[in-house]
Amino acid sequence: MSSSTPEPLTAAVLTVSDTCARGEGSDLSGPAVAKALIEKKFSVVQTAVVADDQNAIQKLLLQLASKANLVVTTGGTGIAERDVTPEATKAICNRLLEGVAERMRAEGRKKTLFADLSRAVCGVHGRSIILNLPGSPKGAVESLEAVIDLLPHALQLLSGNTKHKV
Amino acid sequence: MSSSTPEPLTAAVLTVSDTCARGEGSDLSGPAVAKALIEKKFSVVQTAVVADDQNAIQKLLLQLASKANLVVTTGGTGIAERDVTPEATKAICNRLLEGVAERMRAEGRKKTLFADLSRAVCGVHGRSIILNLPGSPKGAVESLEAVIDLLPHALQLLSGNTKHKV
Amino acid sequence: MSSSTPEPLTAAVLTVSDTCARGEGSDLSGPAVAKALIEKKFSVVQTAVVADDQNAIQKLLLQLASKANLVVTTGGTGIAERDVTPEATKAICNRLLEGVAERMRAEGRKKTLFADLSRAVCGVHGRSIILNLPGSPKGAVESLEAVIDLLPHALQLLSGNTKHKV
Repeated sequence: MSSSTPEPLTAAVLTVSDTCARGEGSDLSGPAVAKALIEKKFSVVQTAVVADDQNAIQKLLLQLASKANLVVTTGGTGIAERDVTPEATKAICNRLLEGVAERMRAEGRKKTLFADLSRAVCGVHGRSIILNLPGSPKGAVESLEAVIDLLPHALQLLSGNTKHKV
Repeated sequence: MSSSTPEPLTAAVLTVSDTCARGEGSDLSGPAVAKALIEKKFSVVQTAVVADDQNAIQKLLLQLASKANLVVTTGGTGIAERDVTPEATKAICNRLLEGVAERMRAEGRKKTLFADLSRAVCGVHGRSIILNLPGSPKGAVESLEAVIDLLPHALQLLSGNTKHKV
Repeated sequence: MSSSTPEPLTAAVLTVSDTCARGEGSDLSGPAVAKALIEKKFSVVQTAVVADDQNAIQKLLLQLASKANLVVTTGGTGIAERDVTPEATKAICNRLLEGVAERMRAEGRKKTLFADLSRAVCGVHGRSIILNLPGSPKGAVESLEAVIDLLPHALQLLSGNTKHKV
């Protein structure tokens, strides 16, 4: 007898932080993001921590995208020179979802002036979505919550169900 | 005696849809968009239907842009692999009007969560403007109405009248 | 004894206008922008006027960015063919701050329909920020005021202070 419950969507969380990668700080943002995803019925299949190194981030994004429908990063979206998560994401995505990034900033703008300095992007790699979030636990979870309800429908469209909703 | 009434702005409507191009579905969005343009005093000089094929879309966009001030597409703006209307539009436009796309999403966001998944762009080709709208009749007309009042002024600027309005 | 007052942030203002560069019109926007910057405690170290010529704009942007933390342009952000300030800015910036441009348009949208036709961008060149504003004195100052409070923090991040604010 086959189950009538659909498989849960899978997610992976990548923390991008020099400090955490060196073991000098504990990663608070990754676990906070994972918790928020689980509350939204995603199955978190892997988490990882990587330094602010574009090549290293790209390699991990590719690995995680092969295992999860949704890959969420936290960190490295700011404007400092070491912040390269958006660059790594753009390098491996064949298309960007500008509206998702705009929505995160538009929601963030209501709460904090500095949300507009986030360079976070959201893109499609194969049938997976990669979503950048800022590095602070609060900023990461708030940004995720601004767009999380879009993502199951987006992932469904990527899997080939192209019925219009708008 | 020359007429004192200015020539109406011309528009063309391109429906991008595999189903409609194969004759398997009737095109509801194209006529809905044409009707909305006529209500705004545009003269609709041509309509066409094309499959979700980037090269075919580009060729038609070029043809239509040579005949109309404004070329409006409907369909192919989503995130599924077959959706390539924004790619075709970007390929033939020398510049994009990001604010027009942002405005469509910002207005859409007030009504539907999924507006932010639209990858619709608006760009300039020569002295014509190409505007992408989503594929559903309702989504297409609502997106058009969010920006239509901008377009006559924009087309006037492209024709060489560069007096500042902002 | 060293001073306890921090050095003020430096700014330069570049007016992009064929008319002003030819001496056929007086530059109202540049001085209005400079005044608004001074009110926000920036030290305006240089102003210049240049024609709507992409290469000439790029050269001046590079010169001014070597002297000031913030380089603000006014003019050349529209959609007419001669408007090339965003192209010049993108050509010399290694990264763009899309959220800053979005915020200017989102604020402008509340006041004027035509704000969405601005193609103004904001980008990072080295440790300086280049910010495009529209060409009218009113539009320029309103756009500046929409984002000016973000800029000291952004410049601080560029100078190497990467503590999270979001």
